[in-house]
Amino acid sequence: MYSGPVIDCDVHHGSRSQEDLLPYLPKGWQEYVKGRRPNPLPLFTVGVLQNPQGFMRQDAVPPNGGRPGSDYETTKAQLLDPYNIARAILTYEDELFMTGWPNPYFAAEVVRAANDWTIDHWLPKDDRLCGSILISNHLPELAVKEIRRLGSHPRMVQVLISTNALGHPLGHPLFHPIYEAAVEVGLPVAIHGASTLTGGIVSPIAHGYPNFYLEYHALTPQGSMTHLVSLIANGVFDKYPSLRIMLLEAGVAWVPAFLWRFDSEYKGLRREVPWVKRLPSEYFHQHVRMTTQPFELSPKREQMIELLSFFDAQDILVFSTDYPHWDSDAVTHIMKRLPESWLPKIFWENAVEAYGERLRVSASTTVAQ
Amino acid sequence: MYSGPVIDCDVHHGSRSQEDLLPYLPKGWQEYVKGRRPNPLPLFTVGVLQNPQGFMRQDAVPPNGGRPGSDYETTKAQLLDPYNIARAILTYEDELFMTGWPNPYFAAEVVRAANDWTIDHWLPKDDRLCGSILISNHLPELAVKEIRRLGSHPRMVQVLISTNALGHPLGHPLFHPIYEAAVEVGLPVAIHGASTLTGGIVSPIAHGYPNFYLEYHALTPQGSMTHLVSLIANGVFDKYPSLRIMLLEAGVAWVPAFLWRFDSEYKGLRREVPWVKRLPSEYFHQHVRMTTQPFELSPKREQMIELLSFFDAQDILVFSTDYPHWDSDAVTHIMKRLPESWLPKIFWENAVEAYGERLRVSASTTVAQ
Repeated sequence: MYSGPVIDCDVHHGSRSQEDLLPYLPKGWQEYVKGRRPNPLPLFTVGVLQNPQGFMRQDAVPPNGGRPGSDYETTKAQLLDPYNIARAILTYEDELFMTGWPNPYFAAEVVRAANDWTIDHWLPKDDRLCGSILISNHLPELAVKEIRRLGSHPRMVQVLISTNALGHPLGHPLFHPIYEAAVEVGLPVAIHGASTLTGGIVSPIAHGYPNFYLEYHALTPQGSMTHLVSLIANGVFDKYPSLRIMLLEAGVAWVPAFLWRFDSEYKGLRREVPWVKRLPSEYFHQHVRMTTQPFELSPKREQMIELLSFFDAQDILVFSTDYPHWDSDAVTHIMKRLPESWLPKIFWENAVEAYGERLRVSASTTVAQ
Repeated sequence: MYSGPVIDCDVHHGSRSQEDLLPYLPKGWQEYVKGRRPNPLPLFTVGVLQNPQGFMRQDAVPPNGGRPGSDYETTKAQLLDPYNIARAILTYEDELFMTGWPNPYFAAEVVRAANDWTIDHWLPKDDRLCGSILISNHLPELAVKEIRRLGSHPRMVQVLISTNALGHPLGHPLFHPIYEAAVEVGLPVAIHGASTLTGGIVSPIAHGYPNFYLEYHALTPQGSMTHLVSLIANGVFDKYPSLRIMLLEAGVAWVPAFLWRFDSEYKGLRREVPWVKRLPSEYFHQHVRMTTQPFELSPKREQMIELLSFFDAQDILVFSTDYPHWDSDAVTHIMKRLPESWLPKIFWENAVEAYGERLRVSASTTVAQ
């Protein structure tokens, strides 16, 4: 079994309450939050689709209470130390959903506050932690501003998109300035599949709103599929040849069927998108990396491995736990589900390659490889 | 190679022009059609997403002109005779899209006209042809009326849903009377995936409208996935234990990833849907059958077979060409892509089992098995 260091590409950290982020907001927006009486505006949005058990691991509640993911010591004790996590990429909690707050100016301030709070309160605590530049995307120029503001911070390793606040697939030209800015600062753009909700503008699944969280959650990979098709069909990788996209929490088993179909469709319909020069599967292999979680459970271990080998997943996947969420994958669980020879790549090398030097040397600690 | 008779479960037949269907409409609706001056209302809807080559095989234009699929002799010469097609299930053409016409009363009359026209002008021409009871679904009670009107016709072998005219996934309780009526008359309900457009009410793909037909068409299986999740989560198969669902033109390679995920999600979230008693994969295997087209092309033939074996596809798939559409699959092509031992089931037995005696004995011709 692999015993080297592990990079966990999707570790959720979140504020304890709006008091954490409030000091980072401009005074006017602080008053906006506190002005909602009798209770101030909570800096998170509650979706209308609710997981009946909540979406947290119950054993991840910090010893002194509070929300799972809000206490560094608990994350350290439950995840970083026991599993030899050499790098953990922090990916926020309810702040993810605030990116889709209807007021685009307020949403942009909240993500700015969340980023500064992460830099001040999480990164200094542990050299193993890396940050994400969270952006809102209703007004791409505000996202660009935030990417440029923090793009050279040595511990911020990716741009992070969560909600789809305009209700258009994410390859739409409206969003291209975001990709341009990410390329300029040399960072990958991560799309966090399981939280790219749409704020009710359009449905997060095809053909209308579901009645149940089960329907939504069984179908969340649809959003990642849509964005991937949209990025390729709109020529984003032709326009920004050095762009890297990280698909977080999208599942992985759907990829072969998806690529086989997309390649065939492209061959039949490429006249419609003359700027797309290569097969979709070629863009995918060059530009896209995916986190392992939620790793689909095939009835037999070998079935999933067989299926992953159809798209050379050993070169595409990067490990993630999704700690501390209800459907997180344990390090030891994923190690057992994959071939031994793939483990150094998926648990370390692919992430170093995808994120580049900043992830490798972001910490002062030297990590054995 | 299999040389027995073939059942083709998705053969598109369509009217030559609105003149074909007009006599079948009530006088008032005839005037409505002709009242649009200078040109009468065409009895089809043109989607805003356009295939740049059209969606017809160019070699399927009848010798005397007209639209592919509109001339029985051409279908006979190109499909039925050369490929030993013992049964062809007719599935309409532009009439499919008329089911989503905004006026629900008019849409219901058009499908009624299309059904009567099929019974008068297609079924008598060839004992090999079977019909579908096309329904609109904005007002489920009108669909129920149509199902009951034609449900005992010995040559009509399924209820056919095309558009999603209410913009809700098709397991929503609003639609349950349709499934109830289908069970009453003993017919399967076919959902024609590639045409379940939504009339602009909601997007046919997750996360908003695409910019290109390529995007839409690469992602059309999303609609079938949504409807399948919706049917199971809303307890449709618990409520109607003898219901059979045929997924037409949905692709097939996505099924393993889909079922593995859905089973896991169900285990975690079943508290939300207490009426769902079994694993989603169990409902799928008992109640759902799928047509082979568009059969995904894996780089190696064996990959697709391996993937199909993960969900016992030899028991689930029924053959279809989708004649005369641009992306139709030839009989000989699909025979070569599947294991020899599966062919009798997929080309004959599974369809007979799914459609029941009506398909087997619908023709006076005795077919060698």
